[in-house]
Amino acid sequence: MAQPIEFYFDFSSPYGYFASAKIDEIAARHDRTVEWRPILLGAIFKLTGGAPLPNIPLKGEYSKHDFVRSARLFNLPFRFPSTFPISSLIPSRAFYWLQERDPQQAKAFAAQLYHAFFAEDVDISKLENTLAIATTMGLSAADLEAGINTPAIKERLKDEVQAAIDKGVFGSPYFIVDSEPFHGSDRLDQVEKWLTTGGW
Amino acid sequence: MAQPIEFYFDFSSPYGYFASAKIDEIAARHDRTVEWRPILLGAIFKLTGGAPLPNIPLKGEYSKHDFVRSARLFNLPFRFPSTFPISSLIPSRAFYWLQERDPQQAKAFAAQLYHAFFAEDVDISKLENTLAIATTMGLSAADLEAGINTPAIKERLKDEVQAAIDKGVFGSPYFIVDSEPFHGSDRLDQVEKWLTTGGW
Repeated sequence: MAQPIEFYFDFSSPYGYFASAKIDEIAARHDRTVEWRPILLGAIFKLTGGAPLPNIPLKGEYSKHDFVRSARLFNLPFRFPSTFPISSLIPSRAFYWLQERDPQQAKAFAAQLYHAFFAEDVDISKLENTLAIATTMGLSAADLEAGINTPAIKERLKDEVQAAIDKGVFGSPYFIVDSEPFHGSDRLDQVEKWLTTGGW
Repeated sequence: MAQPIEFYFDFSSPYGYFASAKIDEIAARHDRTVEWRPILLGAIFKLTGGAPLPNIPLKGEYSKHDFVRSARLFNLPFRFPSTFPISSLIPSRAFYWLQERDPQQAKAFAAQLYHAFFAEDVDISKLENTLAIATTMGLSAADLEAGINTPAIKERLKDEVQAAIDKGVFGSPYFIVDSEPFHGSDRLDQVEKWLTTGGW
């Protein structure tokens, strides 16, 4: 069985959202599965000196234009969130809590969280909003809230971020295909080419 | 007549080199010409807080791997220069001096400079190396050296960098197609799609 594709993303990353809508179908065409791993870019930016794109002079204007243009290209609903960037701490912890219980449902949950933030302007950094989305999926808000607050889940997220850094992950989305790293939603074509050809 | 495509690049940028080898043939397929405009990323990084990719933690390792992988994908000769990054001041001034005399030859000169730096590890920041490349093209080294040192050419390059900043250029390569900006050699497909469709 071929290795799963590792898919790293931050819940506050528009390009991560675009990639999340495409990576599983690309993988499926090549009989691969995808492991979704939310990370906290804020922690990584402390190492790299990075910053949220819209806050960077010149690059900020371009990126806001490019988010909208990319959404049209990917044919995905998008509106620039009224609060941006947000802390991804709560949705990321919620993801890993659910992932330990039901990996497939955790992916569907991540997709719902992304959709809420980037298509419906719901601030998913707020606990009540993340819980409300979980509830629409039939999850228990009380269980999820308790889960998010356990030391084990807090530690899990920290460990995931550190493991991502150790593998060289510096942005969102970031893919690892059989040890080969790719950064950016504009590299999905290369991910697919790599899966098709085994490299070039 | 449709507007020329504006192509901004820094002589020290590997992705600019890759794009320089492709943009004219893409433009020609759509009956367009390309205006080549070397810029100085160092000046732009002062505004954006940017840095040469290989110097950035995590991103540096990835980018060095990606330069080589991208060169293979574009089918272009590449070896990572032993001195990197370099100042692009001399080759950029030399380009604009020649461009005022013979725009087509200036493009060919830029292609030679890029090839020397990224395929043959010639440090084109050094005056004697840039002059030697000009000489192989039948240009007068004495005329070029004198031209590079005129206040008019120094001013011309400053003006070009400022004009690029005023248009929002923050990286290399950067393309403007009928007012639509695209950043990165991995966006050449989108440049071509835009030329084909007129936008999406």
